[in-house]
Amino acid sequence: MKIRGLVKSFEPYRVLEGNYKIWLDKNENPFDLPPEIKEEIFEELRKTPFNRYPHITAMPLREAIAEFYGLNPENVAVGNGGDELLSYLTRLFKGDYIVTTPPTFGMYYFYAKLNEIPVVEVPLDESFTINGDMIAEKAKKASIVFITSPNNPTGNTQPREEILKVLDTGVTVVLDEAYAEFSGKSCIDLLDKYENLIILRTFSKAFSLAGARAGYLLADEEIINAFYRIKSPFSLNSLTMITAKVMLNHYDVVMERVNYIIKERERIYKKFKDYAYPSEANFLLMRLDAYEFLLEKGIVVRKLGGQLKEHIRVTIGKREENDELINALKEFLEGDY
Amino acid sequence: MKIRGLVKSFEPYRVLEGNYKIWLDKNENPFDLPPEIKEEIFEELRKTPFNRYPHITAMPLREAIAEFYGLNPENVAVGNGGDELLSYLTRLFKGDYIVTTPPTFGMYYFYAKLNEIPVVEVPLDESFTINGDMIAEKAKKASIVFITSPNNPTGNTQPREEILKVLDTGVTVVLDEAYAEFSGKSCIDLLDKYENLIILRTFSKAFSLAGARAGYLLADEEIINAFYRIKSPFSLNSLTMITAKVMLNHYDVVMERVNYIIKERERIYKKFKDYAYPSEANFLLMRLDAYEFLLEKGIVVRKLGGQLKEHIRVTIGKREENDELINALKEFLEGDY
Repeated sequence: MKIRGLVKSFEPYRVLEGNYKIWLDKNENPFDLPPEIKEEIFEELRKTPFNRYPHITAMPLREAIAEFYGLNPENVAVGNGGDELLSYLTRLFKGDYIVTTPPTFGMYYFYAKLNEIPVVEVPLDESFTINGDMIAEKAKKASIVFITSPNNPTGNTQPREEILKVLDTGVTVVLDEAYAEFSGKSCIDLLDKYENLIILRTFSKAFSLAGARAGYLLADEEIINAFYRIKSPFSLNSLTMITAKVMLNHYDVVMERVNYIIKERERIYKKFKDYAYPSEANFLLMRLDAYEFLLEKGIVVRKLGGQLKEHIRVTIGKREENDELINALKEFLEGDY
Repeated sequence: MKIRGLVKSFEPYRVLEGNYKIWLDKNENPFDLPPEIKEEIFEELRKTPFNRYPHITAMPLREAIAEFYGLNPENVAVGNGGDELLSYLTRLFKGDYIVTTPPTFGMYYFYAKLNEIPVVEVPLDESFTINGDMIAEKAKKASIVFITSPNNPTGNTQPREEILKVLDTGVTVVLDEAYAEFSGKSCIDLLDKYENLIILRTFSKAFSLAGARAGYLLADEEIINAFYRIKSPFSLNSLTMITAKVMLNHYDVVMERVNYIIKERERIYKKFKDYAYPSEANFLLMRLDAYEFLLEKGIVVRKLGGQLKEHIRVTIGKREENDELINALKEFLEGDY
């Protein structure tokens, strides 16, 4: 066997498995769909021919998303989770490298590496804010700039005026708004003005559909067309397409949960203000080396590394889960571990 | 916008859409799942948390497939349709080019082009059979050889002795058995002996699950491990995973339908022996330039090009659909179009 060196240089992407009680490690929504919404999905699936390929570019879902935002379906692309979209985005545009703003989401690096595209880093400042001028300097030779707002794993949103500085250079900006519903802030309104803006969204977080895998892009028609030239046909399956469509009709349920999660986030933040960073997402970054301690109590959180060594990222769970987290963290702090 | 030239050089992959009566163009199974099997799937989905990410490497489905074939889960990888698997396969191995055997499935070319990997063609002979010796000559510098059996769009299987000639060179062979259930022939038994053999299978054809998008690889553990190093995590969603698992438990239904389709295939073949090629798949290649004629009658088939110009590929449908096809083709022949 002659496996390529590039392939061997990848560590298998692993997540913790096992019988832990509370999972706060993947920024999932703690709530499954209400049973009546599942039944509504099943009712649609009874009428859906499983034996037929899905629509080749997932048009039924693109139309539903477009209607939701008051856009045209030609401005919407959907993918098998945000991941599939990221993989193609790194390959769509001319340029010498992509720009990222660490510490940020790791998958930009994964797909850049896989596609052998160099990465130029313009780090966030000490408050985890992007520096639009510094990114703009690197923009000329860049194929694409990734900006994440709210940022993962830090939780803060990025200032609109800094994003505008980057957009004004004309470079293609992927603004990853995976957690935007928890912040109430978005740059979707800028799509009209900037044809170099691509907004990345997902059904995995606020919409409780991490298991169904659906993400989408909002962008200029030229970008969406280019994307569908190279995208695997039929990649969004019919079951996911229907599930996401049904959930779009239940935005009231989504927002009820978003508000619950925001309240819980603020409750936890207040208790650990000295260690937690302000967040506009469904998770909190904490300067606490408590990963192993929490794991022993059956609570799984995300252990961070690099610049964020000895930090954890904690997804906001259900009230009772958060209570257990709070008690465990108090114990950790009192114990002076 | 600076879209890459490579991207622009792709034609958008399109399929015919519209209100036609009979769809025989995508080699789909004509039968949706029986209602009681759908209900069984829904019963599982009621218990499945949609808000949680699916298993990162789809282990529950890999285990079910392994059990089905008497293999280990470490020898199984699953993907978002065969397409996702093909895309990664072209990039796993060292080598100067991939080898294909035209006329064959177009997506090997698509992913080679997307990943900027040259293609060396070793054409099938006039009976659409591979020449193992000729492929073996090209094998030394190849990363991978694609062999399709039954071949699409010609329908014939490839002789085991010719496949063995290629395997004996040590080159990595992807044997695409997407239609194998319709032929009753497979090289799965060779996996024990050849660690350079990768069998590609799908739930889209015999299993009636084109809408759910699930394909899988059977191969040596080293290849499966390499694959999971670079594969997008979580790419197989929970709904598809459960649907495929449930269908594996209904192989009796699958085979009942396979036998029905085989009978229908032979019925059509006998009527058009002078124009149709023998097939061991769920479709027939016909030397009939009848695409437009059939379309006007509301019957959609696949129009072929290149070496197979003026040929059509006709998926075997339900009995009543096939009757309409037969009548239309008779009319076409009598009319001397």
